[in-house]
Amino acid sequence: MNMVKSLFKVSTPQEVITKLKNHLNLKEIIKNNIEEVDIKITLHRFLAEDIVAPANLPGFNRSTMDGYAIRAEDSFGATGNLPSYLEIIGEIKMGVKPEFRINSGEAVKISTGGMLPKGANAVMMVEYTEQINDTTIEARKSISPWENVVREDEDLKIREIILRKGSRLRPQDIGVLAGIGKTNIKIYRKPRIAIISTGNEIIPAESKPRIGQIRDINSYTLGACIEEAGGVPIYRGIIKDEVILLEQEIKKAIKEDKAEAVIISGGSSVGARDVTLEVLNGLGKPGVLIHGVSVKPGKPTILAIADNRPIFGLPGHPVSAMIIFDLFVRPLISWLQEGEYNNNSTKEIEAELTCNMVSDSGREDYVRVFVYKEGEKFYADPILGKSGLISTMVRASGLIKIGLNIEGLEKGSKVMVKLF
Amino acid sequence: MNMVKSLFKVSTPQEVITKLKNHLNLKEIIKNNIEEVDIKITLHRFLAEDIVAPANLPGFNRSTMDGYAIRAEDSFGATGNLPSYLEIIGEIKMGVKPEFRINSGEAVKISTGGMLPKGANAVMMVEYTEQINDTTIEARKSISPWENVVREDEDLKIREIILRKGSRLRPQDIGVLAGIGKTNIKIYRKPRIAIISTGNEIIPAESKPRIGQIRDINSYTLGACIEEAGGVPIYRGIIKDEVILLEQEIKKAIKEDKAEAVIISGGSSVGARDVTLEVLNGLGKPGVLIHGVSVKPGKPTILAIADNRPIFGLPGHPVSAMIIFDLFVRPLISWLQEGEYNNNSTKEIEAELTCNMVSDSGREDYVRVFVYKEGEKFYADPILGKSGLISTMVRASGLIKIGLNIEGLEKGSKVMVKLF
Repeated sequence: MNMVKSLFKVSTPQEVITKLKNHLNLKEIIKNNIEEVDIKITLHRFLAEDIVAPANLPGFNRSTMDGYAIRAEDSFGATGNLPSYLEIIGEIKMGVKPEFRINSGEAVKISTGGMLPKGANAVMMVEYTEQINDTTIEARKSISPWENVVREDEDLKIREIILRKGSRLRPQDIGVLAGIGKTNIKIYRKPRIAIISTGNEIIPAESKPRIGQIRDINSYTLGACIEEAGGVPIYRGIIKDEVILLEQEIKKAIKEDKAEAVIISGGSSVGARDVTLEVLNGLGKPGVLIHGVSVKPGKPTILAIADNRPIFGLPGHPVSAMIIFDLFVRPLISWLQEGEYNNNSTKEIEAELTCNMVSDSGREDYVRVFVYKEGEKFYADPILGKSGLISTMVRASGLIKIGLNIEGLEKGSKVMVKLF
Repeated sequence: MNMVKSLFKVSTPQEVITKLKNHLNLKEIIKNNIEEVDIKITLHRFLAEDIVAPANLPGFNRSTMDGYAIRAEDSFGATGNLPSYLEIIGEIKMGVKPEFRINSGEAVKISTGGMLPKGANAVMMVEYTEQINDTTIEARKSISPWENVVREDEDLKIREIILRKGSRLRPQDIGVLAGIGKTNIKIYRKPRIAIISTGNEIIPAESKPRIGQIRDINSYTLGACIEEAGGVPIYRGIIKDEVILLEQEIKKAIKEDKAEAVIISGGSSVGARDVTLEVLNGLGKPGVLIHGVSVKPGKPTILAIADNRPIFGLPGHPVSAMIIFDLFVRPLISWLQEGEYNNNSTKEIEAELTCNMVSDSGREDYVRVFVYKEGEKFYADPILGKSGLISTMVRASGLIKIGLNIEGLEKGSKVMVKLF
């Protein structure tokens, strides 16, 4: 071990993202990762096809109220004191196409969702009518053409693109698919991401540590992060810091488990890092691309690509590992499903900092904060503590980022908090 | 059909929540809903037990750096020009308890994660040392006691409560459970929520609608909403607006499917509403509690409780149904797992309104908005369109609420957007 070896040139997060995008052939990885499934099981999955309107929707002029289908012109000028009188010529049955048309001075009883007959162009709400005998109503309000009506192509026009490939499906998106009769769709298979914990001191979580040993936390946090990001975690367990063992394990993850990416966590000590670097440089081209990032916590991060498979060496500290996961692995899991991933996502809130923070210029600092609300305002209270402490993980509700070229933040500053 | 029957006294959302809480015996419903599972499958599940630290963590004084374990006092005043000289008396092997102690003037080589020997109270980073011969180093910096060390109970103190019953588990929470060796935990079973679509005009999504018919959208959107909220959707399908059919279907959902709650969607027409009211009043005590809420869209909402089972009558329009789901069903799914649910959650962002909005006082208005970011600022652009249009569902990224006593909002106002 010498000083030179342990100091390395760090990359900015943007440089890591750029290298990942430039050196990976994503299309090659995902082209066979498509499956066709029932839309009932597609919540938060990524679309593998563009969805196009197969027809106009609703396809007919539909009432949005209970009342009477009329010609709007017949109501013009009508008020409670001076109603229009209209003749009831029938009733629209739900689910039935009316075969008649209405003319000036006529009205037809209609319910919400009913189809307007030919000639009608508005629905007078029942609240503004009074039935004065079997065949006559008073209409007590002036309504505009198409009031209380959804026109036949108002919702969707035939051949319009509704949802694009790569969209992550929300409940309302699934509703739209049902609405156009598309009950089976193509989605991307969830990418399989293998997790290997390394470290001579790491033991399985269910074991009792002897002095100097530490339970495997990262397999669990990273596994849950993978699941949350839309991937499938492959738990490869714990191995010792040895070249042969690590190499074997990565190869098994790729060949046997068909992992699309591998995460190695732990190995932040210089000796362990050397093992990881040696293995990652021997697995395939181009090998190690990044060794060290300008992020705190999270500096000792490694990124390699071997035969179009990204392999991440994440720091051993659970909090650092999660921060690096969010910066690089979470976006990758989206890209592997054609998803756009924007780290400036809308899952962040503006809050006021409760104390001064210092930071080194030339480094992105991530600080865990506890967020609370008083009145209409959010406050971000930094959680100070070493990144290895798991108790601080539980207390934090989000992260603030202090950018590369910012030397610190003052109490009362506005900060954006990315919520966990 | 007459005017009196179709006008009903509306309740505020807060009144609905209060009635739901007062008339439901939640403890009775959930007491047998506990299962014990591997923590690997507990992401976003709700804890059914308090989790207590079984021991101090880490349980030993642990190094957070590669370097030398020393007595901090031996470094006081040391600089690059005027280093302290320390004798190397050994090396800490990872995973091994050091059996010796160090005295003044001594140092022991240690890696990140290693256990400090007795006598040592700090770690000098390797970067600030120079090895001058086999047994001597120069220490070139003054460090404080416990610098680069996690003390034995600094992370968790024995018997401290770490996570409380009802917490919804995040990746970091699962990591903490692994860290204390708790790899199996008690969680609440996901509540089973049945969905019944009603309406003579509604047809299965896979069918081709004849004129006047409409595909079942709500089963899909509500099913996905239930899943997202942490429940299990039970799809009961579509039935006609008939008392006997609806009654039969609800009973089956409760008896055969063991549903803890039932959602009926559709039936917004007066006739269909009457069918729902008749059935819900005949199923058990206390029957219908709410008939109409002061929310737009979503007014024709019904809440009944029958034999400690909540039954919701949601509006037929997909957007209205989702808004009412969020207000009342989503919190219920949390309560059924002892979760606190706060509608003022942190999944909202502040944005600037892009146009004027009007609203009636005495009603909560929910307006769908498209959110975009320019610079560091979010903008909320209202999506105008009838609530029955599914195309508007896809375009919206969130909702803004215009409170009960607000008559409107001006362009440029700050609004809180609840994100989908």
